[in-house]
Amino acid sequence: MIQATMQDAPLSLNHFLERAGRLYGESELVTRRPDKSLVTHTYAAFHQRSLALASALQAAGLKPGDRVATLCWNHHAHLECYFGIPAAGGVMHTLNLRLGADELAWIMNHAEDRFLIVDDVLLPLLEQVRDQVSLERVIVFPFSGMAVDDAFTDYEQFLAGAPTGFQYPEHDENDPVAMCYTSGTTGRPKGVVYSHRSAVLHTLSACLPDSWGLTAGDAVLPVTPMFHANSWGVPYACVMLGLKMIFPGPHLHPEDLLDLFEQTRPTYSLGVPSIWLPMADLMDKQPERWALPAHMRMLVGGSAMPESAIRAFARHGMEVTHGWGMTETSPLASVASIKPELQHLDDDARFPYYATAGLPQPLVDLRIVGDDGVEPPWDGEVTGEIQVHGPFITGSYYQAPDAADKFTPDGWLRTGDVASIDRHGYIRIVDRTKDLIKSGGEWISSVDLENAIMAHPRVAEAAVIAVPHPKWAERPLACVVRKPGQDVSPESIRNLLAERFARWQLPDDYIFMDELPHTSTGKLSKATLRQMHEAGQLPKTE
Amino acid sequence: MIQATMQDAPLSLNHFLERAGRLYGESELVTRRPDKSLVTHTYAAFHQRSLALASALQAAGLKPGDRVATLCWNHHAHLECYFGIPAAGGVMHTLNLRLGADELAWIMNHAEDRFLIVDDVLLPLLEQVRDQVSLERVIVFPFSGMAVDDAFTDYEQFLAGAPTGFQYPEHDENDPVAMCYTSGTTGRPKGVVYSHRSAVLHTLSACLPDSWGLTAGDAVLPVTPMFHANSWGVPYACVMLGLKMIFPGPHLHPEDLLDLFEQTRPTYSLGVPSIWLPMADLMDKQPERWALPAHMRMLVGGSAMPESAIRAFARHGMEVTHGWGMTETSPLASVASIKPELQHLDDDARFPYYATAGLPQPLVDLRIVGDDGVEPPWDGEVTGEIQVHGPFITGSYYQAPDAADKFTPDGWLRTGDVASIDRHGYIRIVDRTKDLIKSGGEWISSVDLENAIMAHPRVAEAAVIAVPHPKWAERPLACVVRKPGQDVSPESIRNLLAERFARWQLPDDYIFMDELPHTSTGKLSKATLRQMHEAGQLPKTE
Repeated sequence: MIQATMQDAPLSLNHFLERAGRLYGESELVTRRPDKSLVTHTYAAFHQRSLALASALQAAGLKPGDRVATLCWNHHAHLECYFGIPAAGGVMHTLNLRLGADELAWIMNHAEDRFLIVDDVLLPLLEQVRDQVSLERVIVFPFSGMAVDDAFTDYEQFLAGAPTGFQYPEHDENDPVAMCYTSGTTGRPKGVVYSHRSAVLHTLSACLPDSWGLTAGDAVLPVTPMFHANSWGVPYACVMLGLKMIFPGPHLHPEDLLDLFEQTRPTYSLGVPSIWLPMADLMDKQPERWALPAHMRMLVGGSAMPESAIRAFARHGMEVTHGWGMTETSPLASVASIKPELQHLDDDARFPYYATAGLPQPLVDLRIVGDDGVEPPWDGEVTGEIQVHGPFITGSYYQAPDAADKFTPDGWLRTGDVASIDRHGYIRIVDRTKDLIKSGGEWISSVDLENAIMAHPRVAEAAVIAVPHPKWAERPLACVVRKPGQDVSPESIRNLLAERFARWQLPDDYIFMDELPHTSTGKLSKATLRQMHEAGQLPKTE
Repeated sequence: MIQATMQDAPLSLNHFLERAGRLYGESELVTRRPDKSLVTHTYAAFHQRSLALASALQAAGLKPGDRVATLCWNHHAHLECYFGIPAAGGVMHTLNLRLGADELAWIMNHAEDRFLIVDDVLLPLLEQVRDQVSLERVIVFPFSGMAVDDAFTDYEQFLAGAPTGFQYPEHDENDPVAMCYTSGTTGRPKGVVYSHRSAVLHTLSACLPDSWGLTAGDAVLPVTPMFHANSWGVPYACVMLGLKMIFPGPHLHPEDLLDLFEQTRPTYSLGVPSIWLPMADLMDKQPERWALPAHMRMLVGGSAMPESAIRAFARHGMEVTHGWGMTETSPLASVASIKPELQHLDDDARFPYYATAGLPQPLVDLRIVGDDGVEPPWDGEVTGEIQVHGPFITGSYYQAPDAADKFTPDGWLRTGDVASIDRHGYIRIVDRTKDLIKSGGEWISSVDLENAIMAHPRVAEAAVIAVPHPKWAERPLACVVRKPGQDVSPESIRNLLAERFARWQLPDDYIFMDELPHTSTGKLSKATLRQMHEAGQLPKTE
């Protein structure tokens, strides 16, 4: 049979690194250090240092596929790990610095991490797990500027001592480059292993104009941790395009970030809603305090972003792009943009679409499947579990034979998110499978209730969970955080909800709390709330 | 060794087609018929009709890899061929309707075309080759609206009679989808065979924001023929993104196109400079005649576009994106955008960069190599042949064992274009290898001279060729087309050139012609000019 005549050229992160060194040497990487001072590196230095890291790792005995863990904040050296470790043939394993010591140790042992690159300011965390793990070498990045203890390898000396003349080892495009464990709420954490191929394809798909739409004029500030699904893959994109990056380091409080925005003028930032929501609140209260860059764009994911919050940012001149995905999907699987047939909509009519999980990305096949195994119509009403398929979607978990139920017989990933899809293709996530409330045989979406409660002008955050009920099986319970110094009554929330929801869908009870529990990646942890409820640890209802 | 956990999902044009059917059913395809009336199809119809074509081809006995040739103008049915033929496992072979009968027959026989889909209005051309080729079945698209002769298969009846229940055959991502012969100026035409993989990867790379930057708000009008390097791959991009397309059909004169622009309001159009240059002239002369869409963008490639012309379009509110590539590179290998470190440039200072061949696209490795086999520095001065490598660059020609000299020992494509690269990475093409003028041991760039001559306000087009000279080996000869009704003296051109060029670089002679010869794809044919000069067929010098 006739064969295509195209060259056999494997997809490779090394191509991005060489491209950056060759074309974008003058582009800048700005890092905020722990003392809040800024330091700037050029891409030329980044390229040279990444290759030095690769060369030093090889000289240290790294073999193809060996795991090199990172326990780091967002900074330029972490970016060097993103490219230097795969360049050497290693697998970068990003560790979540917000995990407990036991879970961290379990993950490091499961992944069989051989080397570790760790920030000096995070050594106290490492100390908590040191006895439980076996690391051949600990390389300490002197992020604080202090001298590194002789007991460790100094990252800077490691690079300075790298043999010259580094040559990329040949690789297949399916070879692994990075791994990340999901913060599953049930069972042990599960590892996803990305390849050169998946990283490159995800980057190309996510960079499309109606997805991230990153351009040469952008300066990108990732608040999303670089240990959280590779900071959503944005660092790969910036290096491919030679874009200026601004790394916030360890100071991530809303005021710290707004100060950094004002100081460094990013055009594009990314993070979870729990980062952004208090910032909108601060800007509402002190509208004169921060002069932010005009037309700044924000990529939001990880949890639903209420339409009211997207509108609040728009009032401050900031444009929210809402994406959906998970560690298992590299992560961007869908993004909320206005499709061709809806281009006639005016600005106001676009907001409800911005609040959806959007449309599937190119290269992603996406379907919803009901409990009966049937795909419901795309009518915006009937729901099913989201299942996805494609070249940057995981097809298994690393050495997790008990995870077979996370995949369908035809090889699609079962995401555990429940959604409807409207006739235009927009995905509206109503819940996690395990967060749905079944009352009297009918489903109630906790996410819909939460978004509606958060539209209350004096509410900061809200979670709705199912609690057992003798007659109705389950009933919704609302847990609400008031904005500081604000008074909110259950009646005022109930009145607001009654405009949109049926009487039987309204929460029976309201609990007011100082803060809600979040997972290590900043998502609302309803599992924790349910556990607190079972243990009788929640405050009394009002 | 540790394996990546990513799904095994082959890249496929079928994914684009299914995506279009599922997500973009309401998007529109507008075709201008031979009688200049417009007809609109939805993407839903396009999806259904493409599958019907695939099903009908299978029922007609198409086997995997069989070539289905198309001899068609740009219209919706040609787009159905782009997807329906690969969906059936066939290879779409686009035939250049501007070729002579002998060359066309040679190409069809070399490709072993089994089926042909042809516009009824192009049957006279088919008649000229019919005796020389062996086609199993000729399927006639009734583009004019007239009934199809019984001697042929009617395309519409072919689709209407397709068996229902079509199933995509499984395929490897390296399986072929399309082929195209290059209009080489020496030797026989050579065939390039694209794969699912190369088509998908090219689409993703070319759609990036700083490359084509196509968005959901765009309406795309390809003037570039769909038989010319797959209309530069833009149809694949439009289907991936569900974008409105406007097909101009057979009427491509400047006034016809301006009328169509005004009528259908495209935001994005693409074509070679010889299409655009007369349009700028018309708009200059009759500024009130056409009310064109605001901020229309134009993708230009195939030949150099003089900076003066890019500025002329800017004065009419139209933005030119200049790309470089060839059939062998899918085709977009580089594109002229302003990179991060040059974002500070004002509008005026950007134009010289817009006139370059730009920066290499992601996934493309590009180098220049001198006659000595050494890569010169990127100093904007020293030149070498452009060589390229990547997953959508051809690594051979179809059944052309004598073409080995078109590739380097390490497998890169030798493009035959000679260029310098400046320190920012911008490629400036000075010539085709064979068009360079060697005078007294020094090289003279014919392209530089042509661009400078075309900056003359009363010059429509110019070509500079080498002619033999007893003392200097070669000397430049300028062939110039005046704008209609305009007078241009050799002195006025010489004075213009003397501002920029050394005395020895100036053409010795000037010839004024009514028009210049072009290749079948609209490029200036200097080979023809050289042949005319040798045969004494050029007009006298002035």
